[in-house]
Amino acid sequence: MAMGNKLVKNAAGRMVPLEINGQPVTPYMGVGKYHPRGIKHAPPIASCADYPSDGNKLVPSLKEALKKCGLKDGMTISTHHHFREGDLVANMVFDCASELGVKGLRWFPSASFPCHAYLMKYLDDGTISHIEGSMNGPLGRYCSEGKMNKTAVLRSHGGRYQAVQDGEVKIDIAVIGAGCADTFGNANGLEGPSASGGLGFALADSQYADKVIVVTDNLVPFPCIPWQIQGNYVDCTVQVDKVGIPEKIISGTTKVTRSPDRLLIAEMTARFCDVTGIIHDGFSFQAGAGGTSLSIGIYFGDIMRKKGIRARFARGGSNKYLVSMLEEGLVDYILDGQTFDLDGVRSIRDNPGHVMTSPFTSYNYHGKGNFAGMVDVVILGATEVDMNFNANVVTHSDGYLLHGLGGWQNCLFGKNVILPIPLFRDRIPVIREEVTTICGPGELIDVIITERGIAINPLRKDLIEKARNADLPLKTIGQLREEAEKICGKPENPVFTDKIVAAIKWVDGTIIDVVKQIAVDR
Amino acid sequence: MAMGNKLVKNAAGRMVPLEINGQPVTPYMGVGKYHPRGIKHAPPIASCADYPSDGNKLVPSLKEALKKCGLKDGMTISTHHHFREGDLVANMVFDCASELGVKGLRWFPSASFPCHAYLMKYLDDGTISHIEGSMNGPLGRYCSEGKMNKTAVLRSHGGRYQAVQDGEVKIDIAVIGAGCADTFGNANGLEGPSASGGLGFALADSQYADKVIVVTDNLVPFPCIPWQIQGNYVDCTVQVDKVGIPEKIISGTTKVTRSPDRLLIAEMTARFCDVTGIIHDGFSFQAGAGGTSLSIGIYFGDIMRKKGIRARFARGGSNKYLVSMLEEGLVDYILDGQTFDLDGVRSIRDNPGHVMTSPFTSYNYHGKGNFAGMVDVVILGATEVDMNFNANVVTHSDGYLLHGLGGWQNCLFGKNVILPIPLFRDRIPVIREEVTTICGPGELIDVIITERGIAINPLRKDLIEKARNADLPLKTIGQLREEAEKICGKPENPVFTDKIVAAIKWVDGTIIDVVKQIAVDR
Repeated sequence: MAMGNKLVKNAAGRMVPLEINGQPVTPYMGVGKYHPRGIKHAPPIASCADYPSDGNKLVPSLKEALKKCGLKDGMTISTHHHFREGDLVANMVFDCASELGVKGLRWFPSASFPCHAYLMKYLDDGTISHIEGSMNGPLGRYCSEGKMNKTAVLRSHGGRYQAVQDGEVKIDIAVIGAGCADTFGNANGLEGPSASGGLGFALADSQYADKVIVVTDNLVPFPCIPWQIQGNYVDCTVQVDKVGIPEKIISGTTKVTRSPDRLLIAEMTARFCDVTGIIHDGFSFQAGAGGTSLSIGIYFGDIMRKKGIRARFARGGSNKYLVSMLEEGLVDYILDGQTFDLDGVRSIRDNPGHVMTSPFTSYNYHGKGNFAGMVDVVILGATEVDMNFNANVVTHSDGYLLHGLGGWQNCLFGKNVILPIPLFRDRIPVIREEVTTICGPGELIDVIITERGIAINPLRKDLIEKARNADLPLKTIGQLREEAEKICGKPENPVFTDKIVAAIKWVDGTIIDVVKQIAVDR
Repeated sequence: MAMGNKLVKNAAGRMVPLEINGQPVTPYMGVGKYHPRGIKHAPPIASCADYPSDGNKLVPSLKEALKKCGLKDGMTISTHHHFREGDLVANMVFDCASELGVKGLRWFPSASFPCHAYLMKYLDDGTISHIEGSMNGPLGRYCSEGKMNKTAVLRSHGGRYQAVQDGEVKIDIAVIGAGCADTFGNANGLEGPSASGGLGFALADSQYADKVIVVTDNLVPFPCIPWQIQGNYVDCTVQVDKVGIPEKIISGTTKVTRSPDRLLIAEMTARFCDVTGIIHDGFSFQAGAGGTSLSIGIYFGDIMRKKGIRARFARGGSNKYLVSMLEEGLVDYILDGQTFDLDGVRSIRDNPGHVMTSPFTSYNYHGKGNFAGMVDVVILGATEVDMNFNANVVTHSDGYLLHGLGGWQNCLFGKNVILPIPLFRDRIPVIREEVTTICGPGELIDVIITERGIAINPLRKDLIEKARNADLPLKTIGQLREEAEKICGKPENPVFTDKIVAAIKWVDGTIIDVVKQIAVDR
């Protein structure tokens, strides 16, 4: 079912609708150009008179809890993705909904993973109408093939907080899985078989949802300390056998790259940061958990040791490498959004310098500032980058929507944004005339570092000046593209139908781009 | 200026108005009887586009910050009382307001202290129209004498959070003094010359005020960890020479009583809790910082050691005695609202078992439950108790309003509420036919323990049953009153005018009683 409404060209030059799923939306207007009006979402006032005076909110089953919270057709149900590929909670929720015969639910996860392909049957039978949230893998493919009943909406971590805070998305029932909780609903992800580290992705849900259910497989006597989720926001608690599969929660994505090309990119990135003075005493950095990023972190550590300097803070996702830098004293603080391995979980639990953050503190663009702009250097990935430094992280060059936005858009507000990426992947060039989907505007992307050269955004004259005299292979983005096309040939563009299957929101809630249905099933 | 509007009898039998300072109010309807409708207060949506991208919100002076936040006539300005008698911030705020020529401000402190008597000149000259918040000492006397331009409103800690959350009190500008802060506005009370422990009393202010200013004398590089106050709520930060007077912040109220009568009361209270089974493995208690309460805590410790049991948690105000119980392993957790001495500050900073709470977690009656109801035994004071176990904490028997409500009303929701009080003070009986001001309804007050006997509320048949066979001097409340009057004579009642000078709110925002102007200046 194609969207009937008119498309307009937004400030990123993309044609976007003025309405999604029957709700008006605002086209992207440029960085910092959209000014929100109005007030935050205000959930109903509760009263202790309506809750057990001894604080025990335990309900016998998740199904009972959902009934108690008034689950009905068309509601919005949220979950978080701290259990990643090991999550069992979202699937349980919709099993219950299906058993209760409820239809047309909007699923609002902070992200979905391949383990949630299980839910396709509920998308097929109308239990779930659509997903608003990042879709990693099969559900993204399902969406790309036009099989979802309504339009998906993808938001960054910060954008998700913003949407909930601003009342763009009203959550009827939030279901929050927790490694550890008490019967009052205080919860954390630090202990128990399903420990996941922090629970920050569920913060907005707990604060703004009408009804909140905490589900745990590890009930502890009140008080559950620390209360990453506060029981005062929680309506019901539920004990189940398992909320997650431990070995898949801690997914072990944290492997340093062994590819010589990637190692070269990592080394060049670190050297670039060194010669341009980005690495200095008291600086801050954010690096992901991918293989290249991990290597960059290790090179950063070497430089810091050699110079005898420290970083004031590192933004996480945390892993054993970052934790070892904290423990060595190379960084004063890890400000952590999610822990990727057991060293991360242990550290955030035991080390006062390893601090849980949330999309509110780190990324919410509709706050009075956030942490993103304070980070000296941010290392990010991309599936594609174009001649204007615009970048894509959600679709592949074949047009399939296979990744979420994560904190990527939010991190673009860092002081120096570097994308260390290979010039091509599987003989498909990464640098293109135009990206398939614009997720981030080029004006916020400062440096592209490939194995065959470094392109600095012409807007960053200061960086060009500083890098000029170093022994670095500086090129223009056009030169990089030509090199890639010389090797791989000019890439073909995917063919789409006119049907919009997903909207990509910018950090301020405006629509920066859309994803269309794949025309040809390959 | 007497209030023109009609008085009605509320469920506590007191005559209360339907309007205060021109705003409609609801008379107290009984415990758990008032059901709030509507939604929480929603502050304006902000945008990072309007805040410095590097996170530095420092403004040269408090006056500049107040101007930047749009200070103008008739606004509501809030402050917190974590600096207690050592607070310098509130006085600074109104000095600035006066210099700027602003008039008619509503001051909304979490409590005021004798050090704020300085502000009488601004109440006199109309800079401040009135105070909504507890008034300890001189300002309460000023209010009792009818000198305030509008009616004062007193709320419990939880009631203050409720009022802000529910939009009953809209804070225009919150000014939050902090022992430690960064330029982004992250703040805590754990470090620096003006360390005060937690900053929980300012939580609602940070979340719901239109504009928030953090003032510190101890600026640290970002990130200030932990962020008890989150910079994402903060508009401006200000550095000043001193936010407080250290030796008055840590006021040393923590002296164990030496009075033989008080010691007898303390010992009886502990014994009562022992024989009735209130003290059991995993129990919880809340005891204040007064001399008798401290002694009770020490007796509790003795009993626990003898029995080889532990408390799951103690609710604070914390002090060195409670901290030593935590360190000894007699209590698993201190859930702390305010730290009364340096041992408390050290412990809440360094001991993960010593946890900061806020009026939201502990006391907010318009939440989905709170901690108050989970506490097994609560030890509270009172200036007066009447035949129905109603109690007063704000006025003396001479009619003067000299104390705040603190967390007293909120704590009445504990499972067992005990008032260990002397039978008389300065030859004035504490147990009366009727209390001067009802602050808490008798149905929530379980036991009165005096040096001459124990009265159990007839509603608590279970406690009467359990205490019956112990060697305890059980009496009726009437017998206690008769004994007091035999010794002191029948007390005279104070004489009031018709003018209502202060309203006492119940935990749900309804009016439980009023205080009238003293007729005769003694």
